Amino acid sequence: MPYTDLDWKAINTIRVLAVDATSAANSGHPGAPMGLAPAAHVVFQKFMTFNPKNPKFLNRDRFVLSNGHGCMLHYALLHLYGYDLSIDDLKHFRQVGSKTPGHPEAHDTPGIEVTTGPLGQGVSNAVGIAIAQAQAGATFNKPGFDLLNSHTYVFVGDGCLQEGVASEAASLAGHLQLGNLIVIYDDNHITIDGDTNVSFTEDVLARFEAYGWHTQWVKDGNEGLDDLEKAIEVAKSVKNKPSIIKLTTIIGYGSLQQGTHGVHGSPLKPDDAKQVKERFGFDPSKFFDVSPEVYGLYKETADRGAAAEAEWNALFEKYKGSFATEASEILRRYEKRLPEGWQNNLPVYSSTDGAVASRKLSETVLAKVINTLPELLGGSADLTGSNLTIWKGAVDFQPPDSKIGDYTGRYIRYGVREHGMGAIMNGISAYGLHIPYAGTFLNFVSYAAGAVRLSALSQHQVIWVATHDSIGLGEDGPTHQPIETVAHLRAIPNLQLWRPADGNECSAAYYVALTSHHTPSVLCLSRQNLPQLENSTIEHAMKGGYVVHEDSEAAVTIVSTGSEVGICVDAIKTLAAEGIKARVASLPCWEVFDSQSQDYKLSVLPDGVPILSVEVYSTLGWEKYSHEQFGLNRFGASGPYKDIYKKFEFTPEGIAKRAKATIDFWKDVKPIRSPLKRAFTQLI
Amino acid sequence: MPYTDLDWKAINTIRVLAVDATSAANSGHPGAPMGLAPAAHVVFQKFMTFNPKNPKFLNRDRFVLSNGHGCMLHYALLHLYGYDLSIDDLKHFRQVGSKTPGHPEAHDTPGIEVTTGPLGQGVSNAVGIAIAQAQAGATFNKPGFDLLNSHTYVFVGDGCLQEGVASEAASLAGHLQLGNLIVIYDDNHITIDGDTNVSFTEDVLARFEAYGWHTQWVKDGNEGLDDLEKAIEVAKSVKNKPSIIKLTTIIGYGSLQQGTHGVHGSPLKPDDAKQVKERFGFDPSKFFDVSPEVYGLYKETADRGAAAEAEWNALFEKYKGSFATEASEILRRYEKRLPEGWQNNLPVYSSTDGAVASRKLSETVLAKVINTLPELLGGSADLTGSNLTIWKGAVDFQPPDSKIGDYTGRYIRYGVREHGMGAIMNGISAYGLHIPYAGTFLNFVSYAAGAVRLSALSQHQVIWVATHDSIGLGEDGPTHQPIETVAHLRAIPNLQLWRPADGNECSAAYYVALTSHHTPSVLCLSRQNLPQLENSTIEHAMKGGYVVHEDSEAAVTIVSTGSEVGICVDAIKTLAAEGIKARVASLPCWEVFDSQSQDYKLSVLPDGVPILSVEVYSTLGWEKYSHEQFGLNRFGASGPYKDIYKKFEFTPEGIAKRAKATIDFWKDVKPIRSPLKRAFTQLI
Ligand SMILES: [Ca+2]
Ligand SMILES: [Ca+2]
Repeated sequence: MPYTDLDWKAINTIRVLAVDATSAANSGHPGAPMGLAPAAHVVFQKFMTFNPKNPKFLNRDRFVLSNGHGCMLHYALLHLYGYDLSIDDLKHFRQVGSKTPGHPEAHDTPGIEVTTGPLGQGVSNAVGIAIAQAQAGATFNKPGFDLLNSHTYVFVGDGCLQEGVASEAASLAGHLQLGNLIVIYDDNHITIDGDTNVSFTEDVLARFEAYGWHTQWVKDGNEGLDDLEKAIEVAKSVKNKPSIIKLTTIIGYGSLQQGTHGVHGSPLKPDDAKQVKERFGFDPSKFFDVSPEVYGLYKETADRGAAAEAEWNALFEKYKGSFATEASEILRRYEKRLPEGWQNNLPVYSSTDGAVASRKLSETVLAKVINTLPELLGGSADLTGSNLTIWKGAVDFQPPDSKIGDYTGRYIRYGVREHGMGAIMNGISAYGLHIPYAGTFLNFVSYAAGAVRLSALSQHQVIWVATHDSIGLGEDGPTHQPIETVAHLRAIPNLQLWRPADGNECSAAYYVALTSHHTPSVLCLSRQNLPQLENSTIEHAMKGGYVVHEDSEAAVTIVSTGSEVGICVDAIKTLAAEGIKARVASLPCWEVFDSQSQDYKLSVLPDGVPILSVEVYSTLGWEKYSHEQFGLNRFGASGPYKDIYKKFEFTPEGIAKRAKATIDFWKDVKPIRSPLKRAFTQLI
Repeated sequence: MPYTDLDWKAINTIRVLAVDATSAANSGHPGAPMGLAPAAHVVFQKFMTFNPKNPKFLNRDRFVLSNGHGCMLHYALLHLYGYDLSIDDLKHFRQVGSKTPGHPEAHDTPGIEVTTGPLGQGVSNAVGIAIAQAQAGATFNKPGFDLLNSHTYVFVGDGCLQEGVASEAASLAGHLQLGNLIVIYDDNHITIDGDTNVSFTEDVLARFEAYGWHTQWVKDGNEGLDDLEKAIEVAKSVKNKPSIIKLTTIIGYGSLQQGTHGVHGSPLKPDDAKQVKERFGFDPSKFFDVSPEVYGLYKETADRGAAAEAEWNALFEKYKGSFATEASEILRRYEKRLPEGWQNNLPVYSSTDGAVASRKLSETVLAKVINTLPELLGGSADLTGSNLTIWKGAVDFQPPDSKIGDYTGRYIRYGVREHGMGAIMNGISAYGLHIPYAGTFLNFVSYAAGAVRLSALSQHQVIWVATHDSIGLGEDGPTHQPIETVAHLRAIPNLQLWRPADGNECSAAYYVALTSHHTPSVLCLSRQNLPQLENSTIEHAMKGGYVVHEDSEAAVTIVSTGSEVGICVDAIKTLAAEGIKARVASLPCWEVFDSQSQDYKLSVLPDGVPILSVEVYSTLGWEKYSHEQFGLNRFGASGPYKDIYKKFEFTPEGIAKRAKATIDFWKDVKPIRSPLKRAFTQLI
């Protein structure tokens, strides 16, 4: 169907809404919405299947605005199509408490698939969505039942394509031949510093071709609706490659400042806004004005989307008849219910069991639960043999013609691409049928910091298997030994950092991580062997903290995590030889411990005696749970790990020495209050 | 000159030393040294100019082993060429206290240019070295005096090239046409997970061509010494593009496991080590055995390097005669001396001056010192107008034919490439004549975490101008508002995080950052205006912490940083209205404050009254300086910043309320000790 005046009116309505919303907020980015409105109209009107009344319809096409600063484009569309986003919401763009924050947040706004704005994340999330779709489709589709076959459409700007995270994800997407991914690159020659020729002169399409993508160039993104439509059709027809369409546009199209960075990040001046409206045939005295025809045009598409969902539901009913098991699996996973009794597979240890590295304990957990939990989609950033993230019989997630796996595979070879891996996992989580986990060294989770904080902000259930978690990795040395990493991750809200000390704690960490559907987890795991603790049980450790060794006559409490807990237990004997009694507590997860009752917490870290913390990282933050801190506020060293532990005095003797200093130092303070007692509570 | 048997003996000596050292350590990576020994021999013997007796010779060619795990390759070369690295040092490979740690650390080992191992960093550092070389050459070279004309040679593996940081740096290097950069890509088809076809099937050379690089492929990296030599000659002849040479090699060449990942990351088995030696004509009963001829061969090259330096010194003497000012500038910068009296340019404020955003204060500092400190090489990750990192009259560092700058330019348009920017700054610092600084939003310093920790570990003087430092950025919302970032950076050893509260604090931050030649700094700067404080002076703030408002009858000390200090000062009045007296301290830099005398620190945060900290970030770590903490242990919000501050109660009333709760809560503890008093000191 040819494009009509009404199509253009709709397009210009999007532009004018972006002008009005940024003007009302006196803040925001009108340029991208004005330049991309035609492309968005084509994608949403001609290609996307979606139901505004059910934004979570499983087989919907996904749309990701990777250049999230242009979010008024997406908000305008969501409103016009009838999502639960009113014109009032648009009027409250960028205001406290609105559903229209300055960058799109998936957990806030219906119809937003992933949280974008931090550049490079959205397009990398989209690779994850495409992976999840391909994996689910290959798993659940059956002859006659092309049940899961959606596409993911992405808008991406120059900024996103300069980011390394996007390069990593794009390279992997090409390798994986993700034909369900279509990226439209807003080639407007402008970034914040001005013309892209100041820093970005590479040949983007040639680069993506090198990655194995299908590439096209549509030279007129301002008027050439037909050209773009044709290009997307071609892109859809290419089934074994992701597609990128370079769309040359003018940023801020219609503004007096169009084509300059002046229109990128601030509202138009009032007279410019006025002339934009006049130019596009709108009444400049009206604001947030949408004609009924435009609502009508978009409602038709919304209705078609609702009908498509109804049709899909009918197909799903038939599928249930023929493939009852698969259908109930889809529903179970969609509703984030774990299979009944799955947790009975978690390994349980007794204190007489041998010492095992916690990365190895993690491998055992995965081996035990992997078949029961088909939603687990694993992987590693090229450290499979070190992270121990794979299991016996695992099939690689690979393009079928690679002959080394297929799309039903549940193990992803991410390559040495930690940041891309993190962003891809967020996308996998966003698709809705998987729980992604993946491995790297703890120190290199930092490479993915940008994605990790978005996991937490967007409430993605993503699990990092972060091995080689300290100076205990030994010879690889300071470049690989985390010092600040754990403080960093503990400071991220809504992130559960676990550092299990033994087998039961490791099982507990997985239990909580797998049942926390709106929280990412990082499991810090040792390279070296750790003994099984006396009082450790899954139930104890699930609380995030518990008493490993109790003594009602203790003069000091020693609190620790992971590989140091066992050494603290040994320090008790050293102290006992000098007639000093001590308690030991293990605190494998602060975030979870914090959520326990104050009574419980005080039973672990009580009043009355001073508390010493012991952990081979920066001490930053440990003051929250202890009166004195023994840690490592410097970089580590290269050598056999036992030598390094000795060098830094993380030995029973070194701990005992500091425990005695702690007792002595606190003897004349009355009362000694647990640091858990606070004058006021924090706002949440 | 054709390659002789002695050349091959030398090459095989490198291989065998790598085998012996990894066997002795029972740890390490023999594969890369064995595969790359021929290439290293060609580069060091035929191309590099260097003087082992003076590893810091300014115009030396630089060598960067980006795949740092292969460091035995480099250690072996350094030893054989006569650097201060003995055969005993090789025998102590990967041992505590040795000069041969598991990954090369520039500050530990003579001849190591940059610390590598974390993948992607080295090659990105090399882009920085190349930038610094081009900038210094354009600045100081004169007709007849091609004084600074060195090349940077890089070895890089598959892993490095998969990392986004390397993609960012490579794209910028192509844009900048860095003809002095030659990268040799070890195409051995192996990463830790096995064959590269599991995750890395892109066309690397096509990608680099898209970036604007000159590309070549040498198909026989095992025997084809002449081919590689020719390719490097061609690469050197290409003056307006960086070069990458894909060198196809066999990892672990000579081992029974050659060509597999089995030889990547662990020592050879004893019988394999034995057959390697036999195969290469060595006595398998000997270890760390180097023939005098091999030492002799390499000594000739070392002697040529020493002669080249002598020749350069003579040229420099002549240069001094003709260009005395330039010559003394080179010396001054090489010796890291700042020009006398430079600090007199730092702006000074009085408390009656108007309120100014600290990003704007930073702009003023830069404007005042930029001409006095030509070693400053600035830039921004495409946020120049927001970070305010540029100055009037700045020339862009751009390739001359771009017509938008030239190589004398001192302002780098990094593009939206934060991680690349961080790694490039490390390289600029490593070259030795510049102090790099660059801007981005504080939240996106996290994207560069991998490079930032290496700045600290390698003791690079690098300055981050990190604006939009909190919820005070307002409407951009939670995706852009740092919460955990400052805790992360404060936990990094040898990093100075500054959060100035006003103009004098901002000047102090720059003063300390510019005079700390072995420490990176991050300056956290506000988007919103901040009042000038009563008791703030550069001298006070230089101590990292001081008293802003003293009161000998205070019932509470309030300690804060940056934009919250002014609000705390206002809270005094709110408290006074209720008859409560309070002190206020500002703590703009913890790392610097920690280095003051205990007496001084206790004068700021004394015993006797409880201390409340106030900062709009995660409270993590503030327990170190305070009894109670008011912070933001959740993500922020999108809206005008004043609304957000109000929402989270960072107002005089909100602070006063918590100050009263603090006083009340601590009234029955005796004595109230300053948290600065500790039972024992940390090991450093
Ligand atoms: Ca753009
Ligand atoms: Ca390789």
